[in-house]
Amino acid sequence: MHIDSVTNDIRRARLGELVATRQCIRIIEAHNPISAIIAENASVSLGSSLGVEEFDGLWSSSLTDSTLHGLPDIEVLDPQTRLANIRDIFAVTTKPLIMDGDTGGKVEHFEFFVRNMELAGVSAVIIEDKTGLKRNSLLGTTVKQVSTDVGEFTAKIRRGKAAQRTPEFMIIARIESLILDLGMADALTRADAYVAAGADGIMIHSRKSNPGEVLEFAREFRRIHPSVVLISAPTTYNSIHAKELQSAGFNVIIYANHMLRAAVKAMQDVSMDILRHGRTAEAERRCVGLEHILHIGPASASTRN
Amino acid sequence: MHIDSVTNDIRRARLGELVATRQCIRIIEAHNPISAIIAENASVSLGSSLGVEEFDGLWSSSLTDSTLHGLPDIEVLDPQTRLANIRDIFAVTTKPLIMDGDTGGKVEHFEFFVRNMELAGVSAVIIEDKTGLKRNSLLGTTVKQVSTDVGEFTAKIRRGKAAQRTPEFMIIARIESLILDLGMADALTRADAYVAAGADGIMIHSRKSNPGEVLEFAREFRRIHPSVVLISAPTTYNSIHAKELQSAGFNVIIYANHMLRAAVKAMQDVSMDILRHGRTAEAERRCVGLEHILHIGPASASTRN
Amino acid sequence: MHIDSVTNDIRRARLGELVATRQCIRIIEAHNPISAIIAENASVSLGSSLGVEEFDGLWSSSLTDSTLHGLPDIEVLDPQTRLANIRDIFAVTTKPLIMDGDTGGKVEHFEFFVRNMELAGVSAVIIEDKTGLKRNSLLGTTVKQVSTDVGEFTAKIRRGKAAQRTPEFMIIARIESLILDLGMADALTRADAYVAAGADGIMIHSRKSNPGEVLEFAREFRRIHPSVVLISAPTTYNSIHAKELQSAGFNVIIYANHMLRAAVKAMQDVSMDILRHGRTAEAERRCVGLEHILHIGPASASTRN
Amino acid sequence: MHIDSVTNDIRRARLGELVATRQCIRIIEAHNPISAIIAENASVSLGSSLGVEEFDGLWSSSLTDSTLHGLPDIEVLDPQTRLANIRDIFAVTTKPLIMDGDTGGKVEHFEFFVRNMELAGVSAVIIEDKTGLKRNSLLGTTVKQVSTDVGEFTAKIRRGKAAQRTPEFMIIARIESLILDLGMADALTRADAYVAAGADGIMIHSRKSNPGEVLEFAREFRRIHPSVVLISAPTTYNSIHAKELQSAGFNVIIYANHMLRAAVKAMQDVSMDILRHGRTAEAERRCVGLEHILHIGPASASTRN
Repeated sequence: MHIDSVTNDIRRARLGELVATRQCIRIIEAHNPISAIIAENASVSLGSSLGVEEFDGLWSSSLTDSTLHGLPDIEVLDPQTRLANIRDIFAVTTKPLIMDGDTGGKVEHFEFFVRNMELAGVSAVIIEDKTGLKRNSLLGTTVKQVSTDVGEFTAKIRRGKAAQRTPEFMIIARIESLILDLGMADALTRADAYVAAGADGIMIHSRKSNPGEVLEFAREFRRIHPSVVLISAPTTYNSIHAKELQSAGFNVIIYANHMLRAAVKAMQDVSMDILRHGRTAEAERRCVGLEHILHIGPASASTRN
Repeated sequence: MHIDSVTNDIRRARLGELVATRQCIRIIEAHNPISAIIAENASVSLGSSLGVEEFDGLWSSSLTDSTLHGLPDIEVLDPQTRLANIRDIFAVTTKPLIMDGDTGGKVEHFEFFVRNMELAGVSAVIIEDKTGLKRNSLLGTTVKQVSTDVGEFTAKIRRGKAAQRTPEFMIIARIESLILDLGMADALTRADAYVAAGADGIMIHSRKSNPGEVLEFAREFRRIHPSVVLISAPTTYNSIHAKELQSAGFNVIIYANHMLRAAVKAMQDVSMDILRHGRTAEAERRCVGLEHILHIGPASASTRN
Repeated sequence: MHIDSVTNDIRRARLGELVATRQCIRIIEAHNPISAIIAENASVSLGSSLGVEEFDGLWSSSLTDSTLHGLPDIEVLDPQTRLANIRDIFAVTTKPLIMDGDTGGKVEHFEFFVRNMELAGVSAVIIEDKTGLKRNSLLGTTVKQVSTDVGEFTAKIRRGKAAQRTPEFMIIARIESLILDLGMADALTRADAYVAAGADGIMIHSRKSNPGEVLEFAREFRRIHPSVVLISAPTTYNSIHAKELQSAGFNVIIYANHMLRAAVKAMQDVSMDILRHGRTAEAERRCVGLEHILHIGPASASTRN
Repeated sequence: MHIDSVTNDIRRARLGELVATRQCIRIIEAHNPISAIIAENASVSLGSSLGVEEFDGLWSSSLTDSTLHGLPDIEVLDPQTRLANIRDIFAVTTKPLIMDGDTGGKVEHFEFFVRNMELAGVSAVIIEDKTGLKRNSLLGTTVKQVSTDVGEFTAKIRRGKAAQRTPEFMIIARIESLILDLGMADALTRADAYVAAGADGIMIHSRKSNPGEVLEFAREFRRIHPSVVLISAPTTYNSIHAKELQSAGFNVIIYANHMLRAAVKAMQDVSMDILRHGRTAEAERRCVGLEHILHIGPASASTRN
């Protein structure tokens, strides 16, 4: 899709179109416009007969957005600041974006958040069923994390669905039962309740290094809900191939934080290299060239000369 | 310096203190809070008797800030947006910062820009003596770039110096004569005029791959101006060691764009790796671990538990 | 139009629909969300058979936006800050908005500005044919103001029209010939050139207290351009009725700065009253009641209880 | 104090200096830079021997900031957006500012909020002892409002005091006991606990139309705490003179929302006048003149010519 033809309304609707027409889509984290441009343009040829692989959309992560600001991942970075970044991303890219909405905040605030996301052109938000101080899920039970009461969370889903202005915007419920060691039955019961409340999709989260529990969840979930959007973020169980997740019934896969984690490593390495050598000659191999940087954004008449 | 004791006023004054007490300081580009945190904490031990090497401060580059937004480096990214980013950087770091002020914009706007930088806690701004549409210097004479009239540029320096509220804020003139093939004499004449107009320092810019012309400039400049701040940004002539630049009379060295260039390379590599392998297992080696990310910001009571 | 059904794309297109279906529309300045809400809801009944009078849209003025920030009206307030305010306005209103684009800035920057306005949902921008430091038009020839070369200005119009992403976005040329005492012939020649270059409309500006010269312009302009949008901002010639401007051929009238000027007077009066009386009892008559303030925004589920 | 000599650090400390040297200071609400400029310059001469009356500082109100954005007063407007506005205010004024911090938010977020206020140059924050969805106090018991547990609130005060970077920043506890009909004893017990926890001052809030209960509170409070800052916001009990509040022991008086309430009335009146008359001639009497607007901000070299 050419950048000049993408408006907020067209982009917002794009995620639903992709989910409807493809078996499984892949989404990658982007934390600022340049990472989004790179994500948008990433392309790998798998051989002449297999075509080209690309990502289908972007993930705005509260973990990476918070980390980018040097803040802990506790919802202290406000949604407005994160949306301003998303608007900057949308000015220079075309692909749809799913926003990590943390807990969604207070139910009375959530409806404002939903409308602001829609106006900005965001396609979907994922909110998680935890309460109290939000902590990163991958910290698991090593910190205090509390599951939200099902009734409270379904009320939040309903409130959000009632507030949205456009038919295509999606509110997706993220289930933390496995993160909090509450068991598969709890996860499945919650999934049913959230879908009944109007959730457009379910994300099942896990911090295990093997995908067993998410595959089990998918099998059970798909028996009851053959067509509801089902999302995996294979951060810890990273050996499973996208095709296997697709076969298991997932239709959205989110690579949730790799762009920032790679950038951090590269910046640590390059800055230490410069200190170590007292010059940048040795650090150049870690960098793209200047001429590359000067032309990385979408071409404009101003720079075509 | 502990983060809890740094206010805007303390930070702003810090650059002058460093320049006054050290022979040569080193500044590295940072384009967002996380890159600034990494720059601030970068540290290399050179062996027990030699102590530890660190950067002395941060450089806010218009090239990397523009590139981060997917915009060309033509002053289309406004100073207010760039200052908002700098405020976010200052919330989580302690080191002083020099801002790349491009041409400084219209002379009547420059005084507002100066005051806003001061209030934000910026220590110095570097403005370059070009006019018309600002283009990146490293494009050299391949694009249309025009040197500013000396009288106009000294007027801008004077206006800025008259507008500043704090005694310590520095306005540094960047000379583009070598970039534009105008010759050494032009560069030196301009340096004299800019210092006479009140510039607190001179940055001499070059796009050659060897440092010959900047060393010659430094030699001539230092004969007349033994104590004025003199700055080098060894981007293209990257084989010269910091100690050599120091010996040649430079007292500030700016590594101007390596953090973003390294981050871009890493993000391109990691995103292609994920597409290529259909999973992130192979990409993990390019990334810092999640537990690292979760604790990279300044410690806070909220996350100490 | 109900607020829940307005997206950026729908709002952007709304101005063109109004212009196409009504003889003359009226636009009023709004400088923040609350002034926009008041403008949107202002309604006067002219008697049972005459129906109700309302404004058709909003005007984002660079004069009032600058004044709101305590800044002079010299384009020092950047377009991004102004657009952020417009996004806040759009979150709580439904009517279309025309943005005062000053000179449009550098031609190479203008295309980015155009695209950002479109994405935000702005319907049209008005740019004026002055060059150098922008000064408020109503200062007339008491300060240095210079007319732009026609060729330069038509190039800017063409560049903007080429850059826009949506068919409905309008770029309107504001002619300063009468402000700068350059004569009617100059104004009319420029109008022809600007329309030929693709301008979607013409705004003729005047600082006279009687409407003679703008009526003369309209008469001559309409002979050649019967259907091009023609705009008046009757700030100084304020005795002419909207119907008379409509009869003269204008189809858009902008009341350009009255909301802020009234707010300033009221705030000066109320603050002095409080000081004078040492209490607020006497000042209350100058204020709306608290219960009014608490329910002035669009109703939300959160506050309907 | 001249604007050119005010930095964030100087301004932040100014409130404490005023409280220490004057018997009772008066603070007025400002919701954007222009209202702050008007508040700063408001001055009434009380006759040759009595000198001139002025306000001593500014109040950033969550009610008026929310209303300005067309949002309900339920903490849905985030602190970062409000602080950005305060920074804009500080760029063009000199007087110190107290920020309405609502409930202070989650305790783990509060420390970040405190540091951001300090860096911005804010002198003090007032937080109120309510929990759950924040509702405007003047709605009283007509909506659900719940008092915070004393232990929780003192923990928040302690956390904030521990987090602050500068010695002069003040955290003031606002007691809602009278608003919630919990009685005088509850209010006084809480005041003792909050002061013991480190609160730098107490604000007692009331929605009665006579000042009886706040005067009683002040009398009892001052017996135990002769020198702790004590604040009144006489919004509903508006007939009491500042001198009487001073005599009763208050040393800070906040006029909390009059600037916005007056601006709203004026904008409603002026917009209806324009519609009614079909022109602005009649509305001019409600407005300050254009030439006044053009010179209302702090003088700058750019506009002195």
